[in-house]
Formats: sequence, C-alpha cells, structure tokens
Amino acid sequence: MIEFSRLPSVVAIVGLGLMGGSLALALKEAGAVEEIIGIDRLPATLEAALARGAVDVVADDLDTVREAGMVILATPVRTILRQIIQLGEMAADGALILDLGSTKRRIVGAMDRLPARLQAVGGHPMCGKETSGLAAAEASLYRDKLFVLTPTARSSEASLAAATELALAAGARVLVMEAERHDRIVAATSHLPSVVASNLVSSVEEWAEGDDQAWNLAASGFRDTTRLAASDVEMMLDILLTNGENIADLMRHFSRHFARLADLIYEEDEGALRERLERAAQKRRDLDNQERKSGPN
Amino acid sequence: MIEFSRLPSVVAIVGLGLMGGSLALALKEAGAVEEIIGIDRLPATLEAALARGAVDVVADDLDTVREAGMVILATPVRTILRQIIQLGEMAADGALILDLGSTKRRIVGAMDRLPARLQAVGGHPMCGKETSGLAAAEASLYRDKLFVLTPTARSSEASLAAATELALAAGARVLVMEAERHDRIVAATSHLPSVVASNLVSSVEEWAEGDDQAWNLAASGFRDTTRLAASDVEMMLDILLTNGENIADLMRHFSRHFARLADLIYEEDEGALRERLERAAQKRRDLDNQERKSGPN
Repeated sequence: MIEFSRLPSVVAIVGLGLMGGSLALALKEAGAVEEIIGIDRLPATLEAALARGAVDVVADDLDTVREAGMVILATPVRTILRQIIQLGEMAADGALILDLGSTKRRIVGAMDRLPARLQAVGGHPMCGKETSGLAAAEASLYRDKLFVLTPTARSSEASLAAATELALAAGARVLVMEAERHDRIVAATSHLPSVVASNLVSSVEEWAEGDDQAWNLAASGFRDTTRLAASDVEMMLDILLTNGENIADLMRHFSRHFARLADLIYEEDEGALRERLERAAQKRRDLDNQERKSGPN
Repeated sequence: MIEFSRLPSVVAIVGLGLMGGSLALALKEAGAVEEIIGIDRLPATLEAALARGAVDVVADDLDTVREAGMVILATPVRTILRQIIQLGEMAADGALILDLGSTKRRIVGAMDRLPARLQAVGGHPMCGKETSGLAAAEASLYRDKLFVLTPTARSSEASLAAATELALAAGARVLVMEAERHDRIVAATSHLPSVVASNLVSSVEEWAEGDDQAWNLAASGFRDTTRLAASDVEMMLDILLTNGENIADLMRHFSRHFARLADLIYEEDEGALRERLERAAQKRRDLDNQERKSGPN
C-alpha cells in the first residue's frame, strides 16, 4: 500500500481540457509532483500539452495509468463513470483515484464498487470559464476557488489528506462534503440557473419569431441572465442526466414561486410585490458583499 | 409655435439621477444647448449637479419648466405619468415633452391626452448601470446605445426630429417604434429576465434555508444569472405595474417551456434535450457575435 501522507511522485491526468490542463499547469508551477502523465484521445491535445510543458509524458491509452500513484479523471461525468470501472482493472495497487466531475452521487457510487486494493475520493473544483479546451487552460484557474471533496467507501484518511494536498497545491480551498448533499446544493446554485438561462433563451426565441426588432433590444441584462445558456452542451447533458432528480425537484420549486409572482403582478399587489423583490434584492446584494469579503468561488 | 428643426436653447431635465444626470452631462459636453434647468426634489442632488457643471440653474419646483422649450422627464415611470398631467398646465406653448421611462404604452397614452398646444414624444434609452443616482452619472452613458423613440398623437415631424437630435447629441443611436410594440419586446428581453432573476434568488433562498453551506457553493454562474435581482426595487415595481399584462403573458410562455424541459430531464430524453440545449446555446452565441459586430446596447 502506498501511504499518502504526501503526494505520490507520478500523477496521471486523464482528459487534458480546461480543467485537466489547468490542473497540470498548476501542479507544474507549484513543483508539487515529479512526473505528470497526460492522457487524452486527441493527438493534437497531447502535442499541445507537451509543448506548453503541462505534462512530462503523454499517451492516448488509459492503460498508462499503471505507472501512476494517483489518477485524476478530468473527463465529462458519464465518461468518468465508464473510466472508473476500467480503472478497477488497470490502476496500480493502492493507487488513489480522484475525479473532477460536476455531479458526485453517481461517481461516488461507482467508486464504492471499486476493488478494495484501490483508494478513491470524489472531487468538484468550483471553477471554470465560458471557453473550454486546453487552449483556455491556465495555471491560475483553481487559485482561491473552492475544491469540494466527497469521501467514498474507498476513502482512507490518508487518501483524503492526499486529495486535500493536491487541491491546496493548485491554490484552491478545500471543503469536504457528502456527495448527496453536494448534488442537492449544486442543483440549486448551479444546475437550476443553467436550465433557467437556457429556457429563457428558448422561450424568448420562440416568442420573438414574429418581430425582427426583438433581439436588437436585448441589452446587457438579458445577456447576463442568459450567459450560462451558451455553456458546453455535452457538459450540461452530463449534469442533467446524472443529477436529474434533484434538478427536476428544484425546477418544480422554482415554478411554484414563479406562478405566485405572476399572480401578484396580475393582481397589481404592490405591497406583496415590493416585499418579495426587496427580499431577493437584499439577498443578492449580500452575495456580492460576501464575495468581496472572501473572494469569488 | 416653436419650430424644432433644431434643439431649443433652454432645456429642462426633471429628475437628476443616473439617466437625467448623465443626459445633462452629455448635452453639456456636446455643447448641444445653451441652458439646462435641473429640477429635482433633493437639495443635495441639485447642489451636486451644479457642482459637476451638469446644469446651469436648479429648482425643486416643476413650475420652472415654463422657461424651457423642451422638458425631459427622467423620473420613475409612475412619477412621469403624474408629471405629464401637471405639464399640461405648466409647460410653455409649443414646448416639447420627452420622457426616459422604461415602459411606454401608458406614458404615450397620457401624452395623447395633453392639450394640443404641446408637443410630446416617448423615449426609452436602452442603457443603465447597476448603481443609480447622480453620483453614478457619466457623460458617456448614452454613447452607442439604442435610444427608442415612440411617437404619440402629440408628435409632429418637427418634434420627432428634435427628439432625434437630442438623442444623437448624447451619442446614442435612434430607433423609432410604436409604444405597444416596444412594451411587448422589452417585456421579453428585459422585464422577463428581471422577474426570472428575482425568482431564482427567492426560490433558492427558501430552498437553501436548511443548509448553511448552500450559498458558499454559489459560483459565478449563479451570480451572473441573478444579477438583475439586485436592481432598484422601485424601478422594478414601476415596470411590473405599468407593463404587467405583457410580462404575465411572457411568464406563462416561459413556464410552459420550462415544464416541458423538466419533463425531458425526468424522462432522460437525451436526444430531445440535446436538440433543445444546442438551439439555445447557438442563439445565445449569436447574440454575442451580434454584439461584437454592432457594439452593445
């Protein structure tokens, strides 16, 4: 058994997109490990990762993880689910598997079914950008951001300590949390905003078809509110299909509130409208103040 | 009758907040008029407007508009509705009344009922900031932004030309449009996003009460999507109570779409979800491309 009182010397990162590529760059900058094996299915990405000095060796085959003491899965959620099963065969005895997927319950479930000879911790760094891919990667992506770790049946204290050390090496802050709780929270604070933004674009687009001037009057408020609608569709699908129950719950909750708001507008109930808008405005301003105090996630 | 082939020498601006204050600064910078009378109910605002050189004379009494060839109402929508009635008595013969309110149907209706001795044009500059008040005002606020003009029964060709010249003097682009059409469009592109953002904060706040970590996981996506929820509540109330029918219509349209999206998530219908998300993402990216081509509104 490898003891993870510190990081292993060889780390494999599977998936060299924005998240995996940025993590590799951050670990290199921090000098946190001796060797990074970069694994991706695209030859051009492997070449670029070598050229940027993000990784030391590259491979397009998951089998290469045999040489690593730690394997970081930075692929889309449903790919991670498949790769965890493969790692059950391929990873070295005692290796630690960590993932960076946006939903955690199903991933932690798959980790729980790994053979006992492997260690595993679920991870979700709360960072990202509108653009994806290695070209957008940067060593500072994780800096001061929250890195959620979700323990599994395969998480020893030593493996949680190693995952924590990795997150700290990338400059992040660590929060340990149950996978189920994580998924309920991000359904509200991240996935619900995404489906709301997408739905706002679709419903206005359908409505606007009769009027060629409609989009000319879409100012910065519309753009802010719908920014998430332009996110990577495969990533959104991954999220909707692995956290659908929580998201559908939240959507129903949102809709009940929205119907009540429409009633108040229809009834011109100024007092109740003022109270509701004031409360939301105050809460939203509190969030900005909180961000100024502690830095953005 | 004053002929508005060009701007009158004396202009009164009623309400020296962000919109009125910025317009005064822009007109001064352009040297577009000889004298600006600034009218506001707050003595501190009047002093500050004089100190910044935004206006030449100040008054806290609407009666002062008697000396102006053009009166610009830069107050909240429901205040504008009351002031239009007062101007029916107070404004000089042949004076042109222009407003900067966010909804236009009811304002244009009030303008239609003015005595025939007055001219009137509805206006809505598509600009603003998160912060309000004279302290946030700047001469560049209107620059390259769309300034919608809505004609009324009191809009002669000469008065439309004068309102256009004023908007151009402030650096804006002019779009002439029927008031009803304007209100339907902004209900979709501006007011619906506001109620959606506010409702997102309220519903998540209620849902999150049981979990003290929920707001710590609210990242930039949540902040972008809910930015409009922090807007000035009195301005939002003004909008909801003067364009409520259009907004309630759009809210119902949004909700039907949202319920269908929740069904697709619940049914795990990957194909239909992908098609819907792709279409919204493409439309949203088109908006960004359009903005890069023509500048933001």
